[in-house]
Amino acid sequence: MVIEKIKESRFTPDVFDITTFGTAFADHMLLSWYKDGKWSEPIIKPYGKLDFTPAISVGHYGQGIFEGMKAYKGETGDVYLFRPDKNLERLNKSAERLDMPQIPEEIFMDGLKALIDLDRQWVPSTYGMSLYLRPVMFATEEAITARSSNEYLFAILTAVAPNYYNKPLSVKVADRYSRAANGGVGFAKAAGNYAGSFYPTHLAREEGYDQVIWTDDATHTFIEEAGTMNVFVRINDKLITAPTSERILDGVTRRSMIELAKAEGIDVEVRKVTVEEMHTAHKNGQLKEVFGVGTAVVVNNYVAVGYASERLELEDLPETESYGKILKKKLVDLQMGISEDPFGWRLKVEENLVEA
Amino acid sequence: MVIEKIKESRFTPDVFDITTFGTAFADHMLLSWYKDGKWSEPIIKPYGKLDFTPAISVGHYGQGIFEGMKAYKGETGDVYLFRPDKNLERLNKSAERLDMPQIPEEIFMDGLKALIDLDRQWVPSTYGMSLYLRPVMFATEEAITARSSNEYLFAILTAVAPNYYNKPLSVKVADRYSRAANGGVGFAKAAGNYAGSFYPTHLAREEGYDQVIWTDDATHTFIEEAGTMNVFVRINDKLITAPTSERILDGVTRRSMIELAKAEGIDVEVRKVTVEEMHTAHKNGQLKEVFGVGTAVVVNNYVAVGYASERLELEDLPETESYGKILKKKLVDLQMGISEDPFGWRLKVEENLVEA
Ligand SMILES: Cc1ncc(COP(=O)(O)O)c(C=O)c1O
Ligand SMILES: Cc1ncc(COP(=O)(O)O)c(C=O)c1O
Repeated sequence: MVIEKIKESRFTPDVFDITTFGTAFADHMLLSWYKDGKWSEPIIKPYGKLDFTPAISVGHYGQGIFEGMKAYKGETGDVYLFRPDKNLERLNKSAERLDMPQIPEEIFMDGLKALIDLDRQWVPSTYGMSLYLRPVMFATEEAITARSSNEYLFAILTAVAPNYYNKPLSVKVADRYSRAANGGVGFAKAAGNYAGSFYPTHLAREEGYDQVIWTDDATHTFIEEAGTMNVFVRINDKLITAPTSERILDGVTRRSMIELAKAEGIDVEVRKVTVEEMHTAHKNGQLKEVFGVGTAVVVNNYVAVGYASERLELEDLPETESYGKILKKKLVDLQMGISEDPFGWRLKVEENLVEA
Repeated sequence: MVIEKIKESRFTPDVFDITTFGTAFADHMLLSWYKDGKWSEPIIKPYGKLDFTPAISVGHYGQGIFEGMKAYKGETGDVYLFRPDKNLERLNKSAERLDMPQIPEEIFMDGLKALIDLDRQWVPSTYGMSLYLRPVMFATEEAITARSSNEYLFAILTAVAPNYYNKPLSVKVADRYSRAANGGVGFAKAAGNYAGSFYPTHLAREEGYDQVIWTDDATHTFIEEAGTMNVFVRINDKLITAPTSERILDGVTRRSMIELAKAEGIDVEVRKVTVEEMHTAHKNGQLKEVFGVGTAVVVNNYVAVGYASERLELEDLPETESYGKILKKKLVDLQMGISEDPFGWRLKVEENLVEA
């Protein structure tokens, strides 16, 4: 790994006051280039510009995949990652489906650790805060022919993350548009999945909602997932979440929530759940909560779910009663090194990993 | 429009001997930038590099759309476009679905004409040859938050096009993977549609086929379209093509072929066609031809169609008997200014449109 350190850090403590997500980047980035069938030695260098022409393949044919992760700083000042192996695994599943090369574990894991170690002052220590990490791979060949690119960039960017989505959201159940096809790329963290979701989300916003809950494209009957979150529905004291499938992203937060809920003795069912079941439960007063889970939001308890022309309002349960809030605290405590880590999910980023 | 002419043209007559598609670009490109809700004055300048960071939005969230068009040079030396209004219309439909801004007609049409006028020596005059034109728009904001970009680049690139796809192809009918969902982005010329198709195409290649014929994602029963072509099936003397839908790209070549076929007195039906119907016709000796149509290939008469484990071989009909070949000649003659233009499809690119 080549390290080219920034001459003078751009860090100042007020970066932690930034209120927009994903537009302020820490000092360094990691880059590796794929060409002639192999990855170049990774380089960590100051975040900045690269040269591309408008013939850059991803702009035309969309081969782009990414991951979303976070680095947390505990009370002792130690910096942690959360289950990064799951992100690498998913990135490589996405890569396969998009006909892109696999990322070697050394580049991903060693690169990630070295990058965070170097920019560790950018990781906030306030409870619930973190530095957002964005591994991304996209097609860079200067070629506008409709085939897989022969060249790719793998990068890891790190962005200042304010307390993202801490406002409770309202979501609209999709009854016209869809996110994923059977036999499509829904399970991949593929760039095109997001592009396709923005217009329906825009329409949902015009109706007063923040995001869309996607349903199956054939019948719009089954609840699949939300914009950037997997969804849990609580009916009475049962927590239900859809099984992952080739149409649904296998979220790391979702998996972790299922295990945490089980450890808490909460009754969790992984099974298909219909919009109708949710609707009926609401009518009968049995729909206790609906929440989205994902790396960015951790857990967001929805305040309302739009279903056709109805708006199902949800009660704001107190911290001690809401499964969403209870599990969120469990998860954040574990991520920040406050609680024990019985599952072995936390990975400490060692200091001085790289000599600069 | 700002014109910044190349100091010394890179043109040499042997560019017409290039055998790869989409990697050799003519002298100039057109650029316009969308920011703060409006498009910048377009600039035509030498094709080349731009500055982007790895946080470029399209690499993460896939907002990218494009068009494929051609410029033709007739025997008199005049240069023509073919139905460019249809491409603009489709580009703006794609833009809407991907939550991207509309391209104003002046930027698209005046830009296209000025660019081709300037690079007219790059348009070959050999019968069947052309200069490939690539209008493209993608998200350029330096932001990794999952929302529509606030900034876009619109560019027109022009690439040397050898006689693309002149080799007859064999195609595999999709029975596992899909290209588009109901309520998805299949009708748009969206970058992500192509990214999702490369892996299934890769698998089809391993089975000895060149491309995939996509079917509906729910049942894999209906023939939809091929990789970059709409599909026509000829059973006895009837030519059948699927109606366009929200899952199928509304090809300019397909539309034109339907009208040309009608003018030729060929019996054309626009209706759903099942894989089974094609298979049965083949068994009974009634499947005369299956061909793909699109700007790049014009018409490609398939030599074989793979269906489950069967390979349906197709006869190579002579020029005078194949509907595909008859219509291809009609279309190319019209595009190159050799025949009359009863439909008003041809647009002559005037000379000296721009003062440089
Ligand atoms: C579509 C989608 N679903 C679900 C999730 C949640 O996944 P994770 O918990 O791994 O962040 C994400 C990611 O952020 C996502 O983009
Ligand atoms: C998916 C797809 N279908 C069909 C076509 C044919 O469209 P057109 O005839 O407008 O080139 C294309 C474009 O090239 C395409 O990409």
